[in-house]
Amino acid sequence: MLDINQLQDYVNNELSQISFHKEPVKLYEPIDYSLAMGGKRIRPVLCLMAAQLFDGDIKKSLYPALALEVFHNFTLLHDDIMDNAEVRRNQPAVHKKWSSNAAILSGDAMLIKAYQFLSICNNDQLPELFALFNELAIGVCEGQQYDMDFETRMDVTADEYIEMIRLKTAILLAGSLKVGALLAKASKEDAECIYEFGLNIGLSFQLQDDYLDCFGDTKNFGKKIGGDILANKKTYLLINALELAQGEEKIELERWLSAVTYNEQEKINSVKELFVKLKVDELSQLKMKEYYQKAMENIQRVNVENKAKDELIRFAQNLMKRNN
Amino acid sequence: MLDINQLQDYVNNELSQISFHKEPVKLYEPIDYSLAMGGKRIRPVLCLMAAQLFDGDIKKSLYPALALEVFHNFTLLHDDIMDNAEVRRNQPAVHKKWSSNAAILSGDAMLIKAYQFLSICNNDQLPELFALFNELAIGVCEGQQYDMDFETRMDVTADEYIEMIRLKTAILLAGSLKVGALLAKASKEDAECIYEFGLNIGLSFQLQDDYLDCFGDTKNFGKKIGGDILANKKTYLLINALELAQGEEKIELERWLSAVTYNEQEKINSVKELFVKLKVDELSQLKMKEYYQKAMENIQRVNVENKAKDELIRFAQNLMKRNN
Repeated sequence: MLDINQLQDYVNNELSQISFHKEPVKLYEPIDYSLAMGGKRIRPVLCLMAAQLFDGDIKKSLYPALALEVFHNFTLLHDDIMDNAEVRRNQPAVHKKWSSNAAILSGDAMLIKAYQFLSICNNDQLPELFALFNELAIGVCEGQQYDMDFETRMDVTADEYIEMIRLKTAILLAGSLKVGALLAKASKEDAECIYEFGLNIGLSFQLQDDYLDCFGDTKNFGKKIGGDILANKKTYLLINALELAQGEEKIELERWLSAVTYNEQEKINSVKELFVKLKVDELSQLKMKEYYQKAMENIQRVNVENKAKDELIRFAQNLMKRNN
Repeated sequence: MLDINQLQDYVNNELSQISFHKEPVKLYEPIDYSLAMGGKRIRPVLCLMAAQLFDGDIKKSLYPALALEVFHNFTLLHDDIMDNAEVRRNQPAVHKKWSSNAAILSGDAMLIKAYQFLSICNNDQLPELFALFNELAIGVCEGQQYDMDFETRMDVTADEYIEMIRLKTAILLAGSLKVGALLAKASKEDAECIYEFGLNIGLSFQLQDDYLDCFGDTKNFGKKIGGDILANKKTYLLINALELAQGEEKIELERWLSAVTYNEQEKINSVKELFVKLKVDELSQLKMKEYYQKAMENIQRVNVENKAKDELIRFAQNLMKRNN
């Protein structure tokens, strides 16, 4: 059994050996750049962990695992254009380093390459894998669309938000585990259990990401704190705050949301104070724990010996940066 | 046997019944709009014609045929952003009607939907079909990249140009026929023959398209004449003219290519005159006929009774708008 770090090394090593460096250079260079940027390789590692959990042989899951990483990076190329993001993993985003056109077309080629990698599996497993991958891929697009729709809406509900992060983030994590499970010929029930585990971890993770964007510290979080507040991003915190705020607090919150000129730090501090007053920080933590708890129940139900599950549980703990 | 018009009606009818009209509306609306724009449905019709040629049953090729049309329309959405095209089939291009972001994300969703349609086939045929589709899709991206690369290059060779149109246009037409052939369980040789037929028709068609953009008349061509000349587009005509021009003609051609302010009609007329003087119009016509002739040889070699091939030959004649 390989541990998380060994699996990450395996993925990185294999990825670095697959050079897309071929003609036309302008199509493949941004792909190589994007895949060499690194990152935690969460999706392929999850896929290989699931494969390992059910049959120990990870080699035959390698290319479908890489497909998940290439797909994820395709979404980053296109999302960064749509969000006009300057930087990705401390380096210029592809559309900034080259052009939007380069990011569009190289992104398209990555999506197709992902499908090519996915196809490297046993023929009898392809139909099920292909259907799953299509479902994940279209779901991620829908999630990105909801996320963009929310920017101009003031009436987003907490349920709509959860549905958005389910599609945009959680299903690909869940699906990565399921791909590994299917390739390892896990039972239908086990594949479903591990999908649900990934889904709940994904929801918990995204809620935490939003929480830390507001209440984390820069050193540990790695991003500037308060970005979501400045962008009026409809996070679980803001959506619940908008629903719970009354009287003076409501007026203050709405004033900050519609303010055009302001001191950035003042806006961040004031909105955070409102969040604390309205106890939406606690609400968010509670929801996070609820999903994490569900995930632990899901993994318990998977029908393999408990010791084999340790690595997956450790992965979830690492992801949530918590030790309980 | 259905004829071309009946097949086109069949495709249009089935496409209109598949409504993508679901949530999130902003993701699916541009897809419905794009697919409702019409067009000749060349790729699905070719696919169904090949299916009909080899076994007569077109129903089981329907969804893979639609996959080819959805894929083609995905490329139009993204190409129109990259080329900053205002209009598509006399209607506003998706990125103009909505936004670039909408065209990017809805295009992505269309590419995934194309794969979903492709998957609606017999499981035992899926691996071969999937591999073919991936190869076509990545080739089309490479062709689009070469086309964009050519914009800033002055040293494009005729061979490079042919390779570009092979990838950007011809392989998808050829592949559409091959998809139909594979689904109808044609022999390997026949599937290859019909692919080559499509490839040569595609090359001939694209050469003619470039020729008509310069020497056609607006009424029959449907587009403004001379657009390629004004854009200094590296067509077969211009590439050969650049190679053949000497002395005064070379100087005049290069002056027009580098001119910043000029009378549009004067540029079109002068460059056309140069093309005629250098006989690249004849060269282009010759090449066109050469590929058409090759296509006819390819179809002759297909191992079915000759009468059954009439509809495909008629299709090629229609496409080339010629009766010989």
